[in-house]
Order: sequence, then C-alpha cells, then structure tokens
Amino acid sequence: MIFTAELPIRFAHCDPAGIVFYPRYFEMMNGVVEDWCAQGLACSFHEMHIARGIGLPTVHLETDFIKPTELGESLLAELVVTKLGKSSVELQICFRGPQQDMRLKAKLVLVMMDLKLRKSIAISDELSTAMQKYCKI
Amino acid sequence: MIFTAELPIRFAHCDPAGIVFYPRYFEMMNGVVEDWCAQGLACSFHEMHIARGIGLPTVHLETDFIKPTELGESLLAELVVTKLGKSSVELQICFRGPQQDMRLKAKLVLVMMDLKLRKSIAISDELSTAMQKYCKI
Amino acid sequence: MIFTAELPIRFAHCDPAGIVFYPRYFEMMNGVVEDWCAQGLACSFHEMHIARGIGLPTVHLETDFIKPTELGESLLAELVVTKLGKSSVELQICFRGPQQDMRLKAKLVLVMMDLKLRKSIAISDELSTAMQKYCKI
Amino acid sequence: MIFTAELPIRFAHCDPAGIVFYPRYFEMMNGVVEDWCAQGLACSFHEMHIARGIGLPTVHLETDFIKPTELGESLLAELVVTKLGKSSVELQICFRGPQQDMRLKAKLVLVMMDLKLRKSIAISDELSTAMQKYCKI
Repeated sequence: MIFTAELPIRFAHCDPAGIVFYPRYFEMMNGVVEDWCAQGLACSFHEMHIARGIGLPTVHLETDFIKPTELGESLLAELVVTKLGKSSVELQICFRGPQQDMRLKAKLVLVMMDLKLRKSIAISDELSTAMQKYCKI
Repeated sequence: MIFTAELPIRFAHCDPAGIVFYPRYFEMMNGVVEDWCAQGLACSFHEMHIARGIGLPTVHLETDFIKPTELGESLLAELVVTKLGKSSVELQICFRGPQQDMRLKAKLVLVMMDLKLRKSIAISDELSTAMQKYCKI
Repeated sequence: MIFTAELPIRFAHCDPAGIVFYPRYFEMMNGVVEDWCAQGLACSFHEMHIARGIGLPTVHLETDFIKPTELGESLLAELVVTKLGKSSVELQICFRGPQQDMRLKAKLVLVMMDLKLRKSIAISDELSTAMQKYCKI
Repeated sequence: MIFTAELPIRFAHCDPAGIVFYPRYFEMMNGVVEDWCAQGLACSFHEMHIARGIGLPTVHLETDFIKPTELGESLLAELVVTKLGKSSVELQICFRGPQQDMRLKAKLVLVMMDLKLRKSIAISDELSTAMQKYCKI
C-alpha cells in the first residue's frame, strides 16, 4: 500500500523566484507524515503528543530536489515504509507533479520517543502492524 | 453568498503551548483569500501574478483572537465582502471551531495593485462583478 | 523609553512579488515582543512558559501596511507601551525602513495568561513596573 | 576558514513538544547560506536574484538531527565548503549548542542557476575564488 496526499502549492510556499522555497517542502512533508499517522495508522499527532506522551521525530533526512515547483501547481505525495525497526521507521516520500514527474524524493528516519524521558522507546505492536501495511517489498 | 474553506490544524501551526501560533493564522487567512480568488472569483493568484502582473496585497488588518485553537482541531473559515471600492475591497473573515464557536474574527482591506508600477489600479469589471456576489448586505 | 530591534529581511520572508509576505511580518513582530520580554523586561518567553507556566498571547491586533519591504533591506522595529492594565498591555510597534520611512504600524493587545487554567491573571508587580518604563506618555 | 553565525532559538521555531520543529532548522540553514553569500562571498541573494538573474538553489540535502534544541537556547552555525565544482558547491553545515555539542549536521549541494533559463551555469571566477577560502582541506 502507498499512502498518498494532495499538496496544492500556495503563495505562502513560494519565494522571490516564484518557486517553492525548500524549507516549505519540509512543512508539507511533515504534514504528509501527520496525515499518514492519523489516517493510515489511526493514531494522530494530537493523540500521540497529548494523550500518549509519545512523539515520532525525524532523526535523519535525505532529499533530492529534482525539479522546481511553481505557484499554482498541485503535487501528489506518495509515502511508503522502506524499513521497520524496533523503535524506528524509515520512509520514502516522493512529491510528483501533474504529469507524474518527480519533483522531490526523500528518505526519512523517524524514531518513536517518550517525550518526557526524551528517550527512544519500542513502537507499539498496534502501530507496527499498521505500519507494515505500507511496507514496500 | 459566503465563501467557506476547511482548515485542519497541523503540528506546524502550533506553538510550545500546544495552540495555534498567531502568525500561522495569517498564513491560513492568506490561503483562504487565495482559494476565494481561484474558486470564487475564477482568477488565481498565479493568474494574477504571472499572467496579468497584478496583485491583491493586504494594506490594513484588524483581528480579534477570541479563543485559542488546539492541535488536531479543524476550523471553518467564512469570508464575505463588507465593502467594495474602485481599487480596494474590504473582507470579513471568521474562523469557527467544531461547535461553530468563534475563534478569530478579522477585517482585511486589500488593494488591487499593478506589480511593476507598484501603484493601485481599478479592480476590473469582471472581478468586481464576481466580488459582488460575496457582498454582505 | 523605546525598545528597538533590527530586522534583516531574508529570502524566507519574501513572496513571488519579491516583497515581504505579510504573515512573516507577524513572525518578526512576535520576535520583537519576545526580545522585549527577555531584554527589556528581564523575563524571557522560556522563563514564562517553562518556569512560570504563564504566557502573553495576543488577543487583538490592528495593522497598517504602509509601504512594501524588499529582499535585502533591513528594518528597524520600535516598540512602546500605549496602555497598561491589570492583566493586559497594549503595544504600538512600528517597522521603519533605512530612511526612517514607516513600513508598518501595529497596535497589539496582549493578555497575561495562566497556561494551565487558560485564564487571564494579573501582571505581576515586577513585570508591570518593568513595562511602565516603556510607556509612551 | 569557517563561516559562523549565531542562531537564537525563538518561540516561532518551536513545536508543541517545546523543541525546534525541524522544517524551521532549514529556514535557519537557508539564512546561514544567505549570510555566507552576503558577508563571506560579497554577493547577497538580493544582488544575485535581482541584479544578476542568478540563484543558488539546494538540489541535495542530507541531515542528521543529533539532539533536540529547546526554546531559549542559542545555537552556533558553522559552514565550510567540502567540494567545489564547475557549477555546484557542496557545503557542510553544523549547528552546535552552548556546550559545543552537536545538534544537527548537514550536507548540502547547491547549484548555480540562471533563473530565467532555469539552467545550471558555471560559478563565476570571482565567486569561486571567494568560495575556495572556505574549503575544508
């Protein structure tokens, strides 16, 4: 399974060159992970942070910016799990343009954390099982 | 007619107190105006900026922040035109919570500008007619 | 006394028209209030939020955007107290360009809050005395 | 030579967990590159974009987020050139905490672009010479 999300490119995302300012891509990317947790894993950031006292911070990130994106375009984000560990998960996220052309390709490593102790903890069986559905074989 | 838009509150919008950081409200508000132009007036920011060389900057803003908004909530934005001049338009934008409770109430004055000349210009008849449909009597 | 701060205009602040995107002005404005608290009132946001469990959210805001600001310019912010109440403080903040020309003029009302109870509380005598030094007669 | 910049951590940078929201690190990182161009290379982004019609977009990025950063801390950014090509330059940027402890380590590849043609171009001799001073042997 691939988790997908639509990303309309807004005025707020664009720089004086009229294209997406790259730090804004990461706000969008975080939004994709947020939607995946809420819709794909049935455990929203709000639920994690407020009710469970856990978080899923990004500890490593690699990104290729392949083609610039202009104001008014709409991108499609695709998220898959590429590795699933005891307390970490590796994701691949691609942003594609209207012609399916790749705009950005990223690898993220997220770690399950206890927010109070600031320590990594095991991903719960429930979440791990939900994540497995998005594993790319 | 009232122009409406849904605003999911994201992790990126929230501050260390767990509520929306107020400058993020204005990014959302600009997004509402952007959607209104594209969907309500049939003239996107991209069309304005790139094809026509015009813009609709905000020159005056008044906002009451009535109740804080938390991570995970979803707001409803409502936009109406409260005054329509030769080159300016006054909008009222409200953000409401899930129980229709008012979170934020804003008055914005936007001015139609020629981007190259950096001068105000008359709103075209076509745009003015489209804006009139959203006038609150 | 007037509290002042320098604001270099960065690429991240500017929109496809090459000028400051107005929600970014409010990020800067919040930074000015933050610096005023830390340097002018000797009580940083960190101290307020983490150690004391209080906050100073903005409940009302009025802004005139007088002249656009371009990438590469440097603004000067000026903050004065225009009204000081039991639990609220009204500020006037101006952003000026290199020729002292006014770019933005804002009135903000901030309220001292207990973050846990989400209720307004009295401004402490210590903070109130510190704020008085910035009162515009 | 190492290019350095101070980065005060603001309320605007922090998330509901009270630590820097990672997309904000990239806004800061872009600011460091911006300052390096203006102060270290004597060619500001404004000069590049407006006067010369060139830009220096990031095409590849790798980041390790080593330790979280809290509201109220101040980081030190260190920038060095790790590779200098005909039209591209590879940078290493580190963010350190008050005890010199590493918070973030990034590798960026930037490419000199003609903004109108949207094509890579050779880095000018003048800029290349200036960049060489920051090369890590």
